[in-house]
Amino acid sequence: MRNLLTAYIYLLSTVLIAQDHAAEIPIPNPAQLAWQQAELGAVFHYDLHVFDGEKYQQNGNSGNRTNPVMDYQQFYPENLDTDQWIKAIKDAGFTFAILTATHETGFALYQSDVNPYCMKALKWKDGKGDIVRDFVNSCRKYGIKPGIYIGIRWNSFFGVYDFKVNGSGEFQKNRQAYYNQMAEGMVTELCTRYGELFEIWFDGGASHPDLGAPDVLPIVKKYQPNCLFYHNNQLAEARWGGSESGTVPYPCWATFPNPYSHSGDTQKDHLQLLKHGDPNGKYWMPAMSDAPLRGYNGRHEWFWEPGDEDHIFPLDHLMEMYRKSVGHNSTLIVGLTPDPRGLLPEPDVQRLKEWGQEIKKQFGNPVSEVSGTGKEIKLKLDKPTLINHIILQEDIARGERVREYIIESQVDGKWKEIGRGESIGHKRIQKIEPSTVSRLRLRITEAIAEPIIKDFSVYQGL
Amino acid sequence: MRNLLTAYIYLLSTVLIAQDHAAEIPIPNPAQLAWQQAELGAVFHYDLHVFDGEKYQQNGNSGNRTNPVMDYQQFYPENLDTDQWIKAIKDAGFTFAILTATHETGFALYQSDVNPYCMKALKWKDGKGDIVRDFVNSCRKYGIKPGIYIGIRWNSFFGVYDFKVNGSGEFQKNRQAYYNQMAEGMVTELCTRYGELFEIWFDGGASHPDLGAPDVLPIVKKYQPNCLFYHNNQLAEARWGGSESGTVPYPCWATFPNPYSHSGDTQKDHLQLLKHGDPNGKYWMPAMSDAPLRGYNGRHEWFWEPGDEDHIFPLDHLMEMYRKSVGHNSTLIVGLTPDPRGLLPEPDVQRLKEWGQEIKKQFGNPVSEVSGTGKEIKLKLDKPTLINHIILQEDIARGERVREYIIESQVDGKWKEIGRGESIGHKRIQKIEPSTVSRLRLRITEAIAEPIIKDFSVYQGL
Repeated sequence: MRNLLTAYIYLLSTVLIAQDHAAEIPIPNPAQLAWQQAELGAVFHYDLHVFDGEKYQQNGNSGNRTNPVMDYQQFYPENLDTDQWIKAIKDAGFTFAILTATHETGFALYQSDVNPYCMKALKWKDGKGDIVRDFVNSCRKYGIKPGIYIGIRWNSFFGVYDFKVNGSGEFQKNRQAYYNQMAEGMVTELCTRYGELFEIWFDGGASHPDLGAPDVLPIVKKYQPNCLFYHNNQLAEARWGGSESGTVPYPCWATFPNPYSHSGDTQKDHLQLLKHGDPNGKYWMPAMSDAPLRGYNGRHEWFWEPGDEDHIFPLDHLMEMYRKSVGHNSTLIVGLTPDPRGLLPEPDVQRLKEWGQEIKKQFGNPVSEVSGTGKEIKLKLDKPTLINHIILQEDIARGERVREYIIESQVDGKWKEIGRGESIGHKRIQKIEPSTVSRLRLRITEAIAEPIIKDFSVYQGL
Repeated sequence: MRNLLTAYIYLLSTVLIAQDHAAEIPIPNPAQLAWQQAELGAVFHYDLHVFDGEKYQQNGNSGNRTNPVMDYQQFYPENLDTDQWIKAIKDAGFTFAILTATHETGFALYQSDVNPYCMKALKWKDGKGDIVRDFVNSCRKYGIKPGIYIGIRWNSFFGVYDFKVNGSGEFQKNRQAYYNQMAEGMVTELCTRYGELFEIWFDGGASHPDLGAPDVLPIVKKYQPNCLFYHNNQLAEARWGGSESGTVPYPCWATFPNPYSHSGDTQKDHLQLLKHGDPNGKYWMPAMSDAPLRGYNGRHEWFWEPGDEDHIFPLDHLMEMYRKSVGHNSTLIVGLTPDPRGLLPEPDVQRLKEWGQEIKKQFGNPVSEVSGTGKEIKLKLDKPTLINHIILQEDIARGERVREYIIESQVDGKWKEIGRGESIGHKRIQKIEPSTVSRLRLRITEAIAEPIIKDFSVYQGL
């Protein structure tokens, strides 16, 4: 009797430990889950200097941070059509879109009541233009989730560099207080005027109120509780993937050791940490891959500039980008460049369309698919088929549980390895040597809790 | 024959010398002449902080230079009526009016296309308000000459202190260039949008382009050739009379040793020079007397603030001010304070009306008057009359020629001095011991050319 009781207690405690362990696995909040499932989004950059007719020197656009655009009346997009922008990304299979409500000039693309350096100041549309509203309306129309990018780190008009109002003494101090209130006011306006936002992206991070920066986190949490907060030194609900190449390396984990993604304390190689994440990190913080569509062959431009059509990434480059971002458990955000007319240029629209078609062609129709839980999941094809891609997906609502896996193909009754890996997370697109297969199995060789595989599928992609 | 010829040549050369001398006498340009003849004007101060409901500490309004007004939407004058402002000064006998298009906050009271911190940014009138236009329209309606006051020396919003954009390095330099262009743009807008301006008043002087300040003089000269330019380190077409008491001391000459009125080079007692001028100065630069109407009994406020009604100058103080400004060859500009409703408060309106009536009563109807040229001018009254004021006026279009004069009354066939003085210029109001007189003479005891007396008149004022 005593032994039985001991055994029972032992059993119970084991179960409880296992439960506790699962309970401790970091999981996404609803905003993060939606953001990862969204996979592919656009960020539209639009600002005063698009209209100056001049081409940046390489990396020259950081000049906007310290060099005010001399004539803001040059902002005059005569054929503005945000429907055209959004339709273009819809055709490409994107699911969300972000607009730079303000960028480094400090000019706001809407009707602000706290920042006079905004569309109210323009001759265009007699000062009544509101591109944020046009943009959000177009997003709603086409079923694209709208997000907002806010630059408060730089403001070449007001004189803000890296959050700090330039200057000294009491004057600087007063203007800093004014600026912080103005920035917080803009965040409040953007969070309250345009309905539910999918993501709010603070350019370069929004620093920390304790460091003298505007206190934006409580505002976003109050007015947009379901919006992904990206990011400041208090919280990052996603992290930058460590490059602007549109890719992250493999493995890429959605977890991180800190609630914020800025460097600062003990991390030695912070860039590597951003790129790979930390499988043992306690905080859910999926990686963003970002790149401008016009980033090919010696240029890398987030804004429209004359003569950059030749720098639109070729289709195969974009497919590789897709595999190494979405396929590496990372959300891909592509930079798009409306031009001075107010339209997304036709070559960009065309390339996006081709890209969407290609993604659909390669990954729209699995040869076979299955889901399941546990350490071994089998997939049977109707007939022997030549495949070259495998997609794996965990149910990340329950966390990232897999740490190591092997994919095997049954050949002549024996299991032969055709691929292996570490992170799966929301999605792993694995390119394999083209093989004719009929039976596959996924073996989870290491996991921190019972694996939950939402999708194990095979493709005849390129 | 030879002696005759010699005498003729001598005579001729004397005349030529005298003509040359007269030709060298400084004279006003048409703008200056009109400004001096205008005698009495108002300067309306209106800015964001009128609406903050707070009272400055004594001299506390310089805080506007370094402390941005936190919420510019507080600017909301629901009952704005510039007709009411202008009618009030018309009743007081004023002939011109100036409005602070911008003051130390940097906020512009019109629809600027170069300074976004302007009425376009307001919720008031849906961003369509233009108080400069309302003001000018009201001036035209009531036959008051409109002028503009522009503050470019301070700008607490943009971060400008004493013309210098606060900060350091390349950033400061770029923003300074931007600011200068913006300031020049505002001057251009104000000089081109509202018709002919009577005076343009740069707050604290507009410095000098060589010192890095905006280059405003060519703009005013190009677009408003008939406007009094007041003033920068290149040119002052009038000078500050050295106090904000609404008076200048006697004597007060309209000439000055430099074309600008700022200190700087060799002048030892610059304030005394501003107050008195220099009879030997080569440049025509008449003195302005200025004071706020609410400057009595321990306060001195150019802007409306709560509870300042008790500080409106009493009538006798204003009459004294009038005699010691207009009556000292100086144009008087009185500061008036529209309130948050957008109206000039009733007590101010009332006092202005009383003042105008009193000036008219005392100086509207001379007992007798005469004009003439030469060193002695006689004035005969119809009958022996008790008088207490004498007014003298030179024809300043021909310069200030008188240096010393005596006024005498004929008593029992003998001339008895009843007053003497130095400067006359546009107008000298001379208070004398009340005397019953029937014949008077003005004796110019020193002059640099033939005196031209436009008016020699006597009054039964208080």
